[in-house]
Amino acid sequence: MFETAELGRKIEKHDYERLVPKLRMDLLRVQNELFQKKPFPVIVLIMGVDGAGKGETVNILHEWMDPRYLEATAFGPLSDEERERPDFWRFWRALPPKGKIGILFGSWYTRPIVQRAYGEIKKVALEDALARINTFEKELAADGALILKFWFHLGKKVQKKRLKSLEKDPKQRWRVTPQDWKHFKLYDTFYKVSTRALRSTSTGEAPWTIVEGADPRYRYLTVGQHILDQLTRRLKEHAKGATRPAPAEKPAPAPERQRQPTILNTLDLARSVEKKKYEKELEELQGRLNALARKASQKAVSTVLVFEGWDAGGKGGAIRRITSALDARAYRVIPIAAPTDEEKSHHYLWRFWRHIPRAGRITIYDRSWYGRVMVERVEGFAAEHEWMRAYKEINNFEEQLTGHGTVVVKFWLHISKDEQLRRFKEREKTSYKQYKITQEDYRNRAKWDDYELAVNDMVERTSTEYAPWHLIEANDKYYARLKILGVICRALEGALKKA
Amino acid sequence: MFETAELGRKIEKHDYERLVPKLRMDLLRVQNELFQKKPFPVIVLIMGVDGAGKGETVNILHEWMDPRYLEATAFGPLSDEERERPDFWRFWRALPPKGKIGILFGSWYTRPIVQRAYGEIKKVALEDALARINTFEKELAADGALILKFWFHLGKKVQKKRLKSLEKDPKQRWRVTPQDWKHFKLYDTFYKVSTRALRSTSTGEAPWTIVEGADPRYRYLTVGQHILDQLTRRLKEHAKGATRPAPAEKPAPAPERQRQPTILNTLDLARSVEKKKYEKELEELQGRLNALARKASQKAVSTVLVFEGWDAGGKGGAIRRITSALDARAYRVIPIAAPTDEEKSHHYLWRFWRHIPRAGRITIYDRSWYGRVMVERVEGFAAEHEWMRAYKEINNFEEQLTGHGTVVVKFWLHISKDEQLRRFKEREKTSYKQYKITQEDYRNRAKWDDYELAVNDMVERTSTEYAPWHLIEANDKYYARLKILGVICRALEGALKKA
Repeated sequence: MFETAELGRKIEKHDYERLVPKLRMDLLRVQNELFQKKPFPVIVLIMGVDGAGKGETVNILHEWMDPRYLEATAFGPLSDEERERPDFWRFWRALPPKGKIGILFGSWYTRPIVQRAYGEIKKVALEDALARINTFEKELAADGALILKFWFHLGKKVQKKRLKSLEKDPKQRWRVTPQDWKHFKLYDTFYKVSTRALRSTSTGEAPWTIVEGADPRYRYLTVGQHILDQLTRRLKEHAKGATRPAPAEKPAPAPERQRQPTILNTLDLARSVEKKKYEKELEELQGRLNALARKASQKAVSTVLVFEGWDAGGKGGAIRRITSALDARAYRVIPIAAPTDEEKSHHYLWRFWRHIPRAGRITIYDRSWYGRVMVERVEGFAAEHEWMRAYKEINNFEEQLTGHGTVVVKFWLHISKDEQLRRFKEREKTSYKQYKITQEDYRNRAKWDDYELAVNDMVERTSTEYAPWHLIEANDKYYARLKILGVICRALEGALKKA
Repeated sequence: MFETAELGRKIEKHDYERLVPKLRMDLLRVQNELFQKKPFPVIVLIMGVDGAGKGETVNILHEWMDPRYLEATAFGPLSDEERERPDFWRFWRALPPKGKIGILFGSWYTRPIVQRAYGEIKKVALEDALARINTFEKELAADGALILKFWFHLGKKVQKKRLKSLEKDPKQRWRVTPQDWKHFKLYDTFYKVSTRALRSTSTGEAPWTIVEGADPRYRYLTVGQHILDQLTRRLKEHAKGATRPAPAEKPAPAPERQRQPTILNTLDLARSVEKKKYEKELEELQGRLNALARKASQKAVSTVLVFEGWDAGGKGGAIRRITSALDARAYRVIPIAAPTDEEKSHHYLWRFWRHIPRAGRITIYDRSWYGRVMVERVEGFAAEHEWMRAYKEINNFEEQLTGHGTVVVKFWLHISKDEQLRRFKEREKTSYKQYKITQEDYRNRAKWDDYELAVNDMVERTSTEYAPWHLIEANDKYYARLKILGVICRALEGALKKA
């Protein structure tokens, strides 16, 4: 989930200076419209790791916006007054009225996350707290509130560096408390708990926006721009007389966002393996996989493999290297193309539920439910509220699978745009591969950037601890196949140990 | 919650014979329209206590409707196939396609409720299962499915009688299994678990309809009519091109429903107390309350008292008898009239959250958040989706209060229509009471039947084990005041024992 917030995104100074004046003017304008019309309240949550610039961002927002229409509340330790009432009382008190923007620094998320990270509450109590939060936010959203939740993230190394540099600066030192270092020691725990919390609470009504916190200019612009976009959009809907507000949605890819690196840029596509080495290791891995699959069958451990990737990314070849290592009775390959009439008449997940493997078997999905947030999103086959909702639906679906003991392994096969073109041309030349290449492939190729953004969001929102994404550098087919087989073997070994 | 399904509602034979032919024709018509247009699937859940006529109702629906567009599934013990896959796999399999009605006899509710009633799973596991169910139903509803959930209820005595009479009938005997009797022994446990389950899962997308199961004609007509109403409504919305289906709503009060008894009819308004006895008992009760309030203050137990009732029902007088027994520093009376501008600019619950008492104090609400589902509903100040949603919001709110340890006691002061008129007239004659009576009171009075239905729904949906409604027979003020004081004293005693 946070992988996409460790990419080193930044904004250059001259870009920042060019963009900020316009953004500020726009913010003041929508703020004024909001206050004049008073159609709904805006609730902005500022959450995230220490040292990621939360406080500074709140300051900047105050600087940029009209403080008369802004109400900021920071939540510290509970007061006597607050302790004597139910937990949410303090938050109800702090809610902004219609027409105003309330910035909440800290929030209803703070306590459950901190308590869980320190082991003071159990996992079920965290789940329970998150369910209550969802109910609370749903009530506010149903009443019309626009809820914008920002989570500021820093990679572990970056956080350490940042805390140290703050400490060195006499003017900034006060920002670092002993508690910050105490939290830092629990970085990995906080990472896990926050992932869980964000995933459970990224709803259609109130989705999270994860902000890479390393670069101040980047984070200020991201937050400011997102507030502007969402507020503009909601005001427009309201003016059109929408009685029921559409859920807050993913930020429109701002120009800065388009130019920022995505998770795919982190992959080193130069990775390759010599043919000799490949043949040797392939045989070894296939032998290992065969033995593991037998054992899984005996122990009734089921497996679901998901293959996604660019056209001509090598999914088919990789799948064949897997199936050739398996007993034909043990697996099924489900190629996912356009849905049948029958499938269309059901919920989009229905067609995937159908093929869930029995105990000990393997289902390989050649493309999958991720079509909803990829091709259906990019091509506009699914409406925005449909594919936005799908992230959570997919996470739920995969959680049910893994909760049942099924091993779920997901691959994205990544190749460069040049490599794709090379393969297209090659296919056109090879008679028995010609059927594989159509005009549609070229059409999809033209939307490469949109797909790349969609992949980035997909990984951000559906890479879970129970079913993480494996991004495969696939310019070299040998390298890709070996890596995939290795991942599957390790996943099975892990599951069999527990079975 | 089930109080309203033990009222002895029934349909006479000649009414039934008059109503059924029209209902059947209408059902066939909408079914056909549904099948031709295929706009969405319809999911009908048939759940409830044994012997309440679930199976017979499914049979009747088959008889009334076109079986070609109907798919019924009964869920028995898990098959091998099912056991080897996640829990919901069997339900996904059974979902109807767009254009058809799927009747599910038993459902995703059966297992968690039965397991909890038998103590096989803990309370948190039940909560977790219910949260998953909500997510599942939300996904289906978001995809357009119309979900109609029926819960068949029988009072304890009626159920026993019914099981016995079934056993005696050679043709019906097979309907009664040893398991039914085993369940019956756990009647009270099942009652509690079902209440919990229904309340947690009666959502805007998929509300429960509780059906009094004692009279066959009543239950068949209720279910058939509700399916007809909801399907008609949804088809109409769809034809209007609503992209986002409005949530399924409360059944429009069918003509039969209007004539059926409500929970208020169960009250014996003739109850009264002699003046002498009243004066003596009042003093005793006030003394007891005073001592209890002191103790509650020491032990930091807070109390919320809610007074609702007909105009001129005697709320003010009852409240004065309470406050005169209390230390003035310990309580606040909050009269709820039209909201202020500030209050209007917030969520409707905000104004009530403001006045939640501190530890050990008492807040008395003279009218309350129930205005949302009473006056705002009847007068149309709140849209249907708003007041329908409010039941759950209110339950959540009160659960947070009681979860924090606050005692919540709710009263509905019931008087007869005649008695109300008598009191209105009396007020008009008494100079210092004239201010209490306005034209509005007469206007409200004209909507007596609507209010009565609203009270019935309110009790059905918000009488919880943690904050039950107390219906007060208030034609006699003395009787009412004593009963109210008694209830408060007992509630405080119970809470203080635990504190």
